Amino acid sequence: MSGYNPGLHILCTFSAGGTVLNDPQACARAFDSIISDLALHKVGEVYHHFPGGGFTAVVCLTESHVSIHTWPEFGVATFDVFLSNFEKDNTEKVKLFVDSAIRSFDATIISKQEITR
Amino acid sequence: MSGYNPGLHILCTFSAGGTVLNDPQACARAFDSIISDLALHKVGEVYHHFPGGGFTAVVCLTESHVSIHTWPEFGVATFDVFLSNFEKDNTEKVKLFVDSAIRSFDATIISKQEITR
Repeated sequence: MSGYNPGLHILCTFSAGGTVLNDPQACARAFDSIISDLALHKVGEVYHHFPGGGFTAVVCLTESHVSIHTWPEFGVATFDVFLSNFEKDNTEKVKLFVDSAIRSFDATIISKQEITR
Repeated sequence: MSGYNPGLHILCTFSAGGTVLNDPQACARAFDSIISDLALHKVGEVYHHFPGGGFTAVVCLTESHVSIHTWPEFGVATFDVFLSNFEKDNTEKVKLFVDSAIRSFDATIISKQEITR
Protein backbone atom coordinates (compact mmCIF):
# COMPACT_ATOMS: atom_id res chain seq x y z
CA MET A 1 0.00 0.00 0.00
CA SER A 2 1.19 3.45 -0.83
CA GLY A 3 -0.29 5.52 1.95
CA TYR A 4 -1.69 7.89 -0.66
CA ASN A 5 -5.43 7.93 -1.32
CA PRO A 6 -6.03 9.83 -4.55
CA GLY A 7 -9.58 11.09 -4.08
CA LEU A 8 -13.27 10.79 -4.88
CA HIS A 9 -14.56 9.38 -8.18
CA ILE A 10 -18.29 9.64 -8.91
CA LEU A 11 -19.73 7.43 -11.66
CA CYS A 12 -23.24 8.32 -12.88
CA THR A 13 -25.66 7.04 -15.41
CA PHE A 14 -28.35 9.58 -16.24
CA SER A 15 -31.30 10.00 -18.57
CA ALA A 16 -31.84 13.23 -20.51
CA GLY A 17 -33.49 14.59 -23.62
CA GLY A 18 -32.14 13.65 -27.00
CA THR A 19 -31.06 17.22 -27.77
CA VAL A 20 -28.71 17.33 -24.80
CA LEU A 21 -27.32 13.89 -25.60
CA ASN A 22 -26.56 14.97 -29.16
CA ASP A 23 -24.87 18.30 -28.55
CA PRO A 24 -21.18 18.06 -27.64
CA GLN A 25 -20.75 21.84 -28.07
CA ALA A 26 -23.37 22.56 -25.40
CA CYS A 27 -21.75 19.93 -23.17
CA ALA A 28 -18.33 21.56 -23.63
CA ARG A 29 -19.79 24.96 -22.71
CA ALA A 30 -21.38 23.49 -19.59
CA PHE A 31 -18.20 21.67 -18.53
CA ASP A 32 -16.02 24.75 -19.19
CA SER A 33 -18.34 26.87 -17.10
CA ILE A 34 -18.24 24.39 -14.21
CA ILE A 35 -14.45 24.02 -14.49
CA SER A 36 -14.15 27.79 -14.26
CA ASP A 37 -16.64 28.11 -11.38
CA LEU A 38 -14.80 25.43 -9.39
CA ALA A 39 -11.33 26.85 -10.22
CA LEU A 40 -10.19 23.57 -11.77
CA HIS A 41 -7.44 23.38 -14.42
CA LYS A 42 -8.07 21.88 -17.85
CA VAL A 43 -5.02 20.63 -19.75
CA GLY A 44 -6.77 19.12 -22.75
CA GLU A 45 -9.99 17.61 -24.03
CA VAL A 46 -11.50 15.44 -26.75
CA TYR A 47 -15.11 15.74 -27.93
CA HIS A 48 -16.11 13.25 -30.61
CA HIS A 49 -19.55 13.51 -32.23
CA PHE A 50 -20.66 10.21 -33.78
CA PRO A 51 -22.06 10.50 -37.32
CA GLY A 52 -25.02 8.36 -36.26
CA GLY A 53 -25.75 10.49 -33.16
CA GLY A 54 -24.40 10.73 -29.64
CA PHE A 55 -20.97 11.82 -28.52
CA THR A 56 -18.08 10.69 -26.39
CA ALA A 57 -15.81 13.09 -24.55
CA VAL A 58 -13.00 13.24 -22.03
CA VAL A 59 -11.63 16.31 -20.31
CA CYS A 60 -8.18 16.05 -18.78
CA LEU A 61 -7.60 18.16 -15.67
CA THR A 62 -4.49 18.61 -13.57
CA GLU A 63 -6.82 17.31 -10.85
CA SER A 64 -7.66 14.14 -12.91
CA HIS A 65 -10.57 13.87 -15.39
CA VAL A 66 -14.19 14.13 -16.46
CA SER A 67 -15.77 11.81 -19.03
CA ILE A 68 -19.15 11.50 -20.73
CA HIS A 69 -20.54 9.03 -23.25
CA THR A 70 -24.05 9.44 -24.61
CA TRP A 71 -26.54 7.13 -26.32
CA PRO A 72 -29.43 9.37 -27.45
CA GLU A 73 -31.23 6.40 -28.99
CA PHE A 74 -31.62 5.04 -25.45
CA GLY A 75 -31.92 8.46 -23.76
CA VAL A 76 -28.94 7.75 -21.49
CA ALA A 77 -25.37 8.79 -20.77
CA THR A 78 -22.58 7.73 -18.47
CA PHE A 79 -20.73 10.55 -16.76
CA ASP A 80 -17.69 10.45 -14.44
CA VAL A 81 -15.90 13.03 -12.37
CA PHE A 82 -12.66 12.12 -10.60
CA LEU A 83 -10.59 14.76 -8.80
CA SER A 84 -7.49 13.94 -6.81
CA ASN A 85 -6.74 15.51 -3.46
CA PHE A 86 -3.05 15.90 -4.29
CA GLU A 87 -2.60 19.53 -3.25
CA LYS A 88 -5.94 20.09 -1.53
CA ASP A 89 -9.14 18.26 -0.71
CA ASN A 90 -11.35 18.33 -3.82
CA THR A 91 -14.01 15.95 -2.50
CA GLU A 92 -16.69 18.61 -2.34
CA LYS A 93 -15.85 19.83 -5.85
CA VAL A 94 -16.51 16.36 -7.28
CA LYS A 95 -20.03 16.46 -5.84
CA LEU A 96 -20.58 20.06 -6.97
CA PHE A 97 -19.38 19.22 -10.50
CA VAL A 98 -21.83 16.32 -10.80
CA ASP A 99 -24.74 18.31 -9.36
CA SER A 100 -24.06 21.29 -11.65
CA ALA A 101 -23.77 19.14 -14.76
CA ILE A 102 -26.94 17.18 -14.01
CA ARG A 103 -28.80 20.48 -13.54
CA SER A 104 -27.29 21.91 -16.71
CA PHE A 105 -28.35 18.84 -18.73
CA ASP A 106 -31.81 18.87 -17.11
CA ALA A 107 -31.04 15.21 -16.50
CA THR A 108 -32.33 12.55 -14.11
CA ILE A 109 -29.81 10.34 -12.36
CA ILE A 110 -30.46 6.62 -12.92
CA SER A 111 -27.52 5.45 -10.81
CA LYS A 112 -24.65 7.09 -8.97
CA GLN A 113 -21.67 5.49 -7.24
CA GLU A 114 -19.20 7.36 -5.08
CA ILE A 115 -15.84 5.60 -4.98
CA THR A 116 -13.08 6.83 -2.71
CA ARG A 117 -9.86 5.87 -4.45
CA MET B 1 -34.61 3.07 -16.48
CA SER B 2 -33.39 2.99 -20.04
CA GLY B 3 -33.06 -0.72 -20.71
CA TYR B 4 -29.54 -0.09 -22.00
CA ASN B 5 -26.57 -1.24 -19.91
CA PRO B 6 -23.46 0.43 -21.31
CA GLY B 7 -20.74 -2.01 -20.27
CA LEU B 8 -17.88 -2.88 -17.94
CA HIS B 9 -15.72 -0.25 -16.23
CA ILE B 10 -12.63 -1.40 -14.34
CA LEU B 11 -11.04 1.01 -11.86
CA CYS B 12 -7.53 0.12 -10.63
CA THR B 13 -4.98 1.58 -8.33
CA PHE B 14 -1.53 0.12 -8.90
CA SER B 15 2.02 0.56 -7.68
CA ALA B 16 4.94 0.70 -10.11
CA GLY B 17 8.47 1.99 -10.44
CA GLY B 18 9.10 5.72 -10.64
CA THR B 19 10.41 5.48 -14.21
CA VAL B 20 7.10 4.07 -15.49
CA LEU B 21 5.09 6.62 -13.54
CA ASN B 22 7.10 9.45 -15.06
CA ASP B 23 7.08 8.46 -18.73
CA PRO B 24 3.91 9.46 -20.59
CA GLN B 25 5.53 8.59 -23.96
CA ALA B 26 6.12 4.99 -22.88
CA CYS B 27 2.56 4.88 -21.55
CA ALA B 28 1.20 6.15 -24.86
CA ARG B 29 3.18 3.50 -26.75
CA ALA B 30 1.82 0.79 -24.44
CA PHE B 31 -1.77 2.03 -24.75
CA ASP B 32 -1.52 2.38 -28.54
CA SER B 33 -0.19 -1.14 -28.82
CA ILE B 34 -3.04 -2.55 -26.69
CA ILE B 35 -5.63 -0.49 -28.60
CA SER B 36 -4.29 -1.94 -31.83
CA ASP B 37 -4.12 -5.51 -30.49
CA LEU B 38 -7.71 -5.32 -29.26
CA ALA B 39 -8.98 -3.62 -32.44
CA LEU B 40 -10.33 -0.63 -30.51
CA HIS B 41 -10.77 2.82 -32.10
CA LYS B 42 -9.02 5.90 -30.70
CA VAL B 43 -10.60 9.26 -31.56
CA GLY B 44 -8.30 11.49 -29.48
CA GLU B 45 -6.03 11.66 -26.48
CA VAL B 46 -4.42 14.01 -23.98
CA TYR B 47 -1.12 13.25 -22.22
CA HIS B 48 0.01 15.92 -19.76
CA HIS B 49 3.42 15.61 -18.08
CA PHE B 50 3.60 17.60 -14.85
CA PRO B 51 6.73 19.75 -14.46
CA GLY B 52 7.21 18.36 -10.95
CA GLY B 53 6.84 14.73 -12.10
CA GLY B 54 4.02 12.37 -12.87
CA PHE B 55 1.50 12.57 -15.67
CA THR B 56 -2.21 12.54 -16.30
CA ALA B 57 -3.77 11.17 -19.46
CA VAL B 58 -7.09 10.30 -21.06
CA VAL B 59 -7.64 8.37 -24.26
CA CYS B 60 -11.01 8.77 -25.94
CA LEU B 61 -12.27 5.71 -27.83
CA THR B 62 -15.40 5.21 -29.87
CA GLU B 63 -15.96 2.41 -27.31
CA SER B 64 -15.60 4.91 -24.37
CA HIS B 65 -12.30 5.74 -22.60
CA VAL B 66 -9.09 4.92 -20.78
CA SER B 67 -7.55 7.16 -18.13
CA ILE B 68 -4.39 7.16 -16.03
CA HIS B 69 -3.09 9.52 -13.36
CA THR B 70 0.30 8.90 -11.74
CA TRP B 71 1.96 10.05 -8.52
CA PRO B 72 5.57 8.86 -8.74
CA GLU B 73 6.39 10.41 -5.37
CA PHE B 74 4.01 7.86 -3.84
CA GLY B 75 4.75 5.08 -6.35
CA VAL B 76 1.08 4.81 -7.36
CA ALA B 77 -1.31 5.44 -10.22
CA THR B 78 -5.02 5.18 -10.84
CA PHE B 79 -6.02 3.56 -14.11
CA ASP B 80 -9.49 3.08 -15.65
CA VAL B 81 -10.76 1.22 -18.68
CA PHE B 82 -14.41 1.56 -19.70
CA LEU B 83 -15.69 0.03 -22.94
CA SER B 84 -19.32 0.09 -23.94
CA ASN B 85 -21.07 -2.89 -25.47
CA PHE B 86 -22.95 -0.71 -27.95
CA GLU B 87 -22.24 -2.70 -31.11
CA LYS B 88 -20.71 -5.79 -29.55
CA ASP B 89 -19.80 -7.21 -26.17
CA ASN B 90 -16.45 -5.68 -25.13
CA THR B 91 -16.45 -7.06 -21.58
CA GLU B 92 -13.52 -9.38 -22.20
CA LYS B 93 -11.53 -6.59 -23.87
CA VAL B 94 -11.80 -4.43 -20.74
CA LYS B 95 -10.16 -7.20 -18.72
CA LEU B 96 -7.53 -7.86 -21.40
CA PHE B 97 -6.70 -4.15 -21.60
CA VAL B 98 -6.14 -3.92 -17.86
CA ASP B 99 -4.07 -7.12 -17.71
CA SER B 100 -1.90 -6.05 -20.67
CA ALA B 101 -1.27 -2.58 -19.26
CA ILE B 102 -0.39 -3.89 -15.80
CA ARG B 103 2.08 -6.33 -17.38
CA SER B 104 3.50 -3.59 -19.59
CA PHE B 105 4.02 -1.28 -16.60
CA ASP B 106 5.49 -4.15 -14.52
CA ALA B 107 2.97 -2.95 -11.96
CA THR B 108 1.29 -4.49 -8.92
CA ILE B 109 -2.44 -3.99 -8.47
CA ILE B 110 -3.31 -2.43 -5.10
CA SER B 111 -7.07 -2.41 -5.71
CA LYS B 112 -9.37 -3.23 -8.60
CA GLN B 113 -13.11 -2.73 -8.91
CA GLU B 114 -15.22 -4.09 -11.74
CA ILE B 115 -18.38 -2.02 -12.25
CA THR B 116 -21.03 -3.12 -14.70
CA ARG B 117 -22.66 0.09 -15.86
